[in-house]
Amino acid sequence: WVQSIRLKTQGPVEQYGLKRFSTAEATVILRENGKMREKTLTMDTLNPQVKAVEYAVRGPIVTKAGDIERGLQQGQKHPFTEVIKANIGDSHAMGQKPITFLRQVVALCSFPELLNSPSFPEDAKQRARRILQGCGGQSLGSYSASQGVDCIRQDVAVYIEQRDKGVPADWDNIYLTTGASDGIVSILKMLVSGQGRSRSGVMIPIPQYPLYSAAISELEAVQINYYLDEDNCWALDINELHRAYQAAKEHCHPRVICIINPGNPTGQVQSRKCIEDVLHFAYEENLFVMSDEVYQDNVYSPDLQFHSFKKVLYEMGPEYFNTVELASFHSTSKGYSGECGFRGGYMEVLNLDLEVKAQLVKLLSVRLCPPVSGQAAMDVIVNPPLPHEPSYLQFHKEKSAVLGALAEKAQVTEQTLNTVPGIKCNPVQGAMYAFPRIFIPPRAVEEAKSLGMSPDMMYCLRLLEETGICLVPGSGFGQREGTYHFRMTILPTTEKLKVLLEKLRDFHIKFLKEYASLEEPKR
Amino acid sequence: WVQSIRLKTQGPVEQYGLKRFSTAEATVILRENGKMREKTLTMDTLNPQVKAVEYAVRGPIVTKAGDIERGLQQGQKHPFTEVIKANIGDSHAMGQKPITFLRQVVALCSFPELLNSPSFPEDAKQRARRILQGCGGQSLGSYSASQGVDCIRQDVAVYIEQRDKGVPADWDNIYLTTGASDGIVSILKMLVSGQGRSRSGVMIPIPQYPLYSAAISELEAVQINYYLDEDNCWALDINELHRAYQAAKEHCHPRVICIINPGNPTGQVQSRKCIEDVLHFAYEENLFVMSDEVYQDNVYSPDLQFHSFKKVLYEMGPEYFNTVELASFHSTSKGYSGECGFRGGYMEVLNLDLEVKAQLVKLLSVRLCPPVSGQAAMDVIVNPPLPHEPSYLQFHKEKSAVLGALAEKAQVTEQTLNTVPGIKCNPVQGAMYAFPRIFIPPRAVEEAKSLGMSPDMMYCLRLLEETGICLVPGSGFGQREGTYHFRMTILPTTEKLKVLLEKLRDFHIKFLKEYASLEEPKR
Repeated sequence: WVQSIRLKTQGPVEQYGLKRFSTAEATVILRENGKMREKTLTMDTLNPQVKAVEYAVRGPIVTKAGDIERGLQQGQKHPFTEVIKANIGDSHAMGQKPITFLRQVVALCSFPELLNSPSFPEDAKQRARRILQGCGGQSLGSYSASQGVDCIRQDVAVYIEQRDKGVPADWDNIYLTTGASDGIVSILKMLVSGQGRSRSGVMIPIPQYPLYSAAISELEAVQINYYLDEDNCWALDINELHRAYQAAKEHCHPRVICIINPGNPTGQVQSRKCIEDVLHFAYEENLFVMSDEVYQDNVYSPDLQFHSFKKVLYEMGPEYFNTVELASFHSTSKGYSGECGFRGGYMEVLNLDLEVKAQLVKLLSVRLCPPVSGQAAMDVIVNPPLPHEPSYLQFHKEKSAVLGALAEKAQVTEQTLNTVPGIKCNPVQGAMYAFPRIFIPPRAVEEAKSLGMSPDMMYCLRLLEETGICLVPGSGFGQREGTYHFRMTILPTTEKLKVLLEKLRDFHIKFLKEYASLEEPKR
Repeated sequence: WVQSIRLKTQGPVEQYGLKRFSTAEATVILRENGKMREKTLTMDTLNPQVKAVEYAVRGPIVTKAGDIERGLQQGQKHPFTEVIKANIGDSHAMGQKPITFLRQVVALCSFPELLNSPSFPEDAKQRARRILQGCGGQSLGSYSASQGVDCIRQDVAVYIEQRDKGVPADWDNIYLTTGASDGIVSILKMLVSGQGRSRSGVMIPIPQYPLYSAAISELEAVQINYYLDEDNCWALDINELHRAYQAAKEHCHPRVICIINPGNPTGQVQSRKCIEDVLHFAYEENLFVMSDEVYQDNVYSPDLQFHSFKKVLYEMGPEYFNTVELASFHSTSKGYSGECGFRGGYMEVLNLDLEVKAQLVKLLSVRLCPPVSGQAAMDVIVNPPLPHEPSYLQFHKEKSAVLGALAEKAQVTEQTLNTVPGIKCNPVQGAMYAFPRIFIPPRAVEEAKSLGMSPDMMYCLRLLEETGICLVPGSGFGQREGTYHFRMTILPTTEKLKVLLEKLRDFHIKFLKEYASLEEPKR
């Protein structure tokens, strides 16, 4: 990927009286002088916590996919004409159209002269005026408060109250963030302390979204794995929580439990009962609860619904609701809007100690504020057109179309994958991913090991090279020893998704055949 | 600031069959049960590195200013009718208008339907089309590559080549960032390693912009202060660098030198000779150079000019240019555009070890990408209208007006401050701040100490309470022991700036009188 393209400029350095030299020449000069200066920053001196970070969603497979894509553009031959990227939940990149109303509001905020244009609807203008009034100098170009623009935080609180059927939300507990990732890392950062056996332990689901493991590495916290139950549609099993907690207590101080609901990469939607169990466990064991709810609008199974951790906590009564420390995260990037590039998001933090809260605001203030255009996008998501407003019909149509298509693709993906021998896929109840289990023959496992590669990494690399399909190996998310998976998004257009699934099936069958045969595998 | 406003919602929880309870009730219940659950996250268990962070630009004075502002709105009486915020380089909040062309491009990118509108100029449309073609699905809503959108990075490289009179810039070395802060923290994070005496030391100017000290605290690196020479217009003295380096070598491993040019908070513009000295020093001592050049367009003294560290490094010859590791930072937030809220920025990193570069990209990829609308704003700044293009005249007029006004205000500020007895202000050669030295009478110093406060903090608090002017005490940036300063921006409108300076003068004279008298100071 380190492809270096020299660009034309107005004139060569010589024109300005400077001498031109090439890197090669310079290296010769330096070698001759015998004084090649050592680098300050090398793999040996690099921060070891940075080295420890892994993030598979943009890992080597994706880098390779980019290389192949550029190669195709330059006329290189491959057994396919197009790379299909199903590695990352990036809706617009896969062809999903933005929600018109959201973009109208952002454009109006960006260039307020448009407020005079008759081609923008009044409800979009009203949203934009309200947002701009909350900005310093009525400009998106001002820093906002570090917690975010006041009126947007108020809108978020109203949204949460409505979502949670009246459970009170206080806008002082709302923090706007740079995507959900920013909020998650900030809260984890606060929670890490202690040394040795008293070092903070963070309980995360396995499989997990690798932001969690990456942040834990970077912060040198202790990762505590609790395994989701693949045989039970990736449900969270409370006994497994107890097991993981008890085992971890021996070598660290478990202080946080992270839950992703609906699940990433696993797509399950947690039952109300399960959430209550988790909250009870967190109450008893004095754990801080982080609930990643960025897929709250992405529930496809008609017999399931999203329950927020906060609402369940409320229903458990005041001794829970007024004590358990809970941070919940949301984002503009997922749902039906898929606005990843705006880096908008919020977190609601309950029962934070007041002095700690001041420390959190201080920490956030060093980075000044989340992008204000992302805050504006978040505002539209929590404050969409109402039935009596002029943009309602179009908004509703666009939103339903996106969510309807996702529900259909969730089903197509699950069903098609389950027709392939050696692939077993749980229902995609929510979120944007399938995380099927794949059978990898022992001889393929051996070959991968001899290459120093995880078997599902080898599988995904070969899939990419032979079909142009880019997926992420299950090992990037964590999985039970000896099981193999991949994560694929359900985001390609229905047509392209069907092509992808067909190619995947053919590849898998061929792969099984190749490694099942008695002769040496031919490549 | 913890002001909690309950919002109206569609209906009370009772309506949904939930029981309502107040926090007070709940606390009573809990106390009666004798089982008040302890908090997981308290000041005792908070990450000590977070606790150590300080960031004065949004510190207690600013919090207090916000409180007073809200009080005024609610009809509270103060000896003034308005808070004037001169604490932060936030141009639009102080009334500066956005550059029209930049906002047109961002609006076009946000709502591409406007590409058909005849009311947008063709050059803005051409920029927007180019940016959108670089985005996945031609949408600002897609994640970009973690390094940023390719074509924007290419535009940055061309801009740098032109700025530096043809010195080559490779777009592979360009990383788009979330404001400059994000880039600075990422590079520092890479550079921190070792324990005890081999822990990384980071040389920073004193006075400094407190992002540096905050990041150093958070990363547990060792802060090495080198003092700028106040008696010599805040120039960087190479002997002082040697002194600081030698002293620090005893207890840490100095690995980085940070320079802010033009200076923040000190406003000096470094001479070419001085930059060459610093680079020579960094070469000899094997230091990584971080040059914070976000004020490169903010130079006001007609006899001074901005020299980039990169260009000087090039002119020093290949043994320097091809070896010294240099990261340079720029931003959309300053200059003439003042687009802080978009959180746009870039860094150029030279001579990075190739493996380390891959690690940097990996680290950045965990946060996915910088906000794409901020990247678009950055693109306009590096690729503004050319003389033959339709928007050129208006762009040029707006840019000159902003920079002309800043130059005038820089002069007014310096001159007025120097008329006040007990205030001495160096020329504001560049950036957006004055950092005058203030005489604080010994009795005021004593009083502050008895209050457990730094004397300039007490000074600024009283200034705020008595006049409504919000400045940041010098202690938040660092200063030589026994000297006192404040930082004020030159961003208020000329009219308001004059009011501010007048009020400040009156306050200062009154303050001197009060603490010079023999009786106890009356308050």
